[in-house]
Amino acid sequence: MKETVTICEVGPRDGLQMAASIMATPAKCAWIAALAASGLREIEVGSFVPARLIPQMADTDAVVRFARAIPGLTVVALAPNLRGAEAAVAAGAHRISVPVSISAGHSRANLNRTPDEQVAVVAGILAWMQDNAPGTELEVACSTAFGCSIDGIIPQAEVVRIAAALAEAGVTQIGLADTVGYANPAQIKSTIRAVRAEIGPALVGLHLHDTLGLGIANALAGLEAGIRDFDAALAGLGGCPFAPGASGNIVTEDLVFMLESMGFDTGIDLARLLAARAPLHAGLPDETLHGQLAKAGIPRIFHPAA
Amino acid sequence: MKETVTICEVGPRDGLQMAASIMATPAKCAWIAALAASGLREIEVGSFVPARLIPQMADTDAVVRFARAIPGLTVVALAPNLRGAEAAVAAGAHRISVPVSISAGHSRANLNRTPDEQVAVVAGILAWMQDNAPGTELEVACSTAFGCSIDGIIPQAEVVRIAAALAEAGVTQIGLADTVGYANPAQIKSTIRAVRAEIGPALVGLHLHDTLGLGIANALAGLEAGIRDFDAALAGLGGCPFAPGASGNIVTEDLVFMLESMGFDTGIDLARLLAARAPLHAGLPDETLHGQLAKAGIPRIFHPAA
Repeated sequence: MKETVTICEVGPRDGLQMAASIMATPAKCAWIAALAASGLREIEVGSFVPARLIPQMADTDAVVRFARAIPGLTVVALAPNLRGAEAAVAAGAHRISVPVSISAGHSRANLNRTPDEQVAVVAGILAWMQDNAPGTELEVACSTAFGCSIDGIIPQAEVVRIAAALAEAGVTQIGLADTVGYANPAQIKSTIRAVRAEIGPALVGLHLHDTLGLGIANALAGLEAGIRDFDAALAGLGGCPFAPGASGNIVTEDLVFMLESMGFDTGIDLARLLAARAPLHAGLPDETLHGQLAKAGIPRIFHPAA
Repeated sequence: MKETVTICEVGPRDGLQMAASIMATPAKCAWIAALAASGLREIEVGSFVPARLIPQMADTDAVVRFARAIPGLTVVALAPNLRGAEAAVAAGAHRISVPVSISAGHSRANLNRTPDEQVAVVAGILAWMQDNAPGTELEVACSTAFGCSIDGIIPQAEVVRIAAALAEAGVTQIGLADTVGYANPAQIKSTIRAVRAEIGPALVGLHLHDTLGLGIANALAGLEAGIRDFDAALAGLGGCPFAPGASGNIVTEDLVFMLESMGFDTGIDLARLLAARAPLHAGLPDETLHGQLAKAGIPRIFHPAA
């Protein structure tokens, strides 16, 4: 009996928000269908933010409605505030992901609020959901938890303080995000230990970027520290428009290859996952696709865990 | 007091043997000088193999003689047999690195001998060195220890058997090489445990490739299993002409960044290490240079261990 690791594909949200051109809605839908066909069971398909800020996300409502129809798929949508959460629920998202920046500078740039003000926004969303969306999940991604290209080093105590405030507000799914890719494996482990000591099993996931080449090693560190939920983006797309210097997410294909090779069950078929690069490329032909597995091909020694 | 990790830069040997064009001797020397100036204390500068097999290595004698003159640098040269070892000693290499393939297929392709025949070659080199090169060190790199693109899966028992035979023959520095980049972190740890149980401290190093994107994660796994000596290549150059499908070594810059960020002391100045890419590019202008740190730049939060 293999242990399960869940991967949430964030390419259609985080991966696209830095893309130079707009991916058309039918292309996004074809890509999401291919991702789901590989066995991915969670996909963050877009964000409910003003179209003038991130034009790429203007069609999130339509994309959520399309993805909802894929059997067995948990459809995640990002919402930075109550208005976004209302739109996500109206579209039928199964889970709303709300960002809370640990760093004041990123919080201001990304949300135009202080971290504590954003914790209050989350509490407001939760209160609204209790009456209006009882079947919808809410998760919080703590951005810049391992460093910030605006504010620099982020004190671990601040990560713990915000995570505790979120748990106190009733959030039961909290993730730590290395928004700009500054984390190292020792820091990943020590931060997880410190946050878990405060909020226990409410700490569920890691969201990692490969800016400095340590993304997959940081995932390994998180895995060894007990994390079983990871965000990743096909072909390593991604970045944050409000976090200067951030580059792509960890590559879903390479992460799945590592996990399955180590004996974990992700439920994902690697060949089908690689095949999902074709509709991505078709919809965004100018974007550089990253990933070592795609370059080398699935090696002959590979035996999936499942 | 920080713990030390030693990095042996193998770019001028492993990194160059797959390069499409020949790097001129003065360019190699300028590159090696820049590498040493960054604080690297071990550089594998070439291999004593027939020039008709690997023309890039035809000038290894001159390169070793140049590198010998750099104060404080341990000059390593690869030699596949006694003739090569004699040439390495004559040129003044401080350490001879002899490859022994674990896989029969790679051993045949690379050395035209069985693994056991190559163990006997090592024993012969050691016997010769006792009388003729008492001050020179010998290390053995066990190629394809984690999988082979010719033979497929390599049984761990075979790695242990060959390592034990080498230790029995008197080899005191044995490294495990993931020649084609097939290893995963769990395999790295379990193989290290098994080999160490047999040969103890004679297991010293890891040589990793990033073919499938797991190179730095595998280095982390090795580090956690107690390894403190790693090979790496500037800009992730590398491969093996006799191991189809192998791609570049782990990127020295990214590895140093991880280690120093985690609090280990490599003795290497990251800015100077990045600067050593310039003479590499000048000498091999057509070669693609890899590495995330070089792309992103040293982040503002970085504080070296030293």
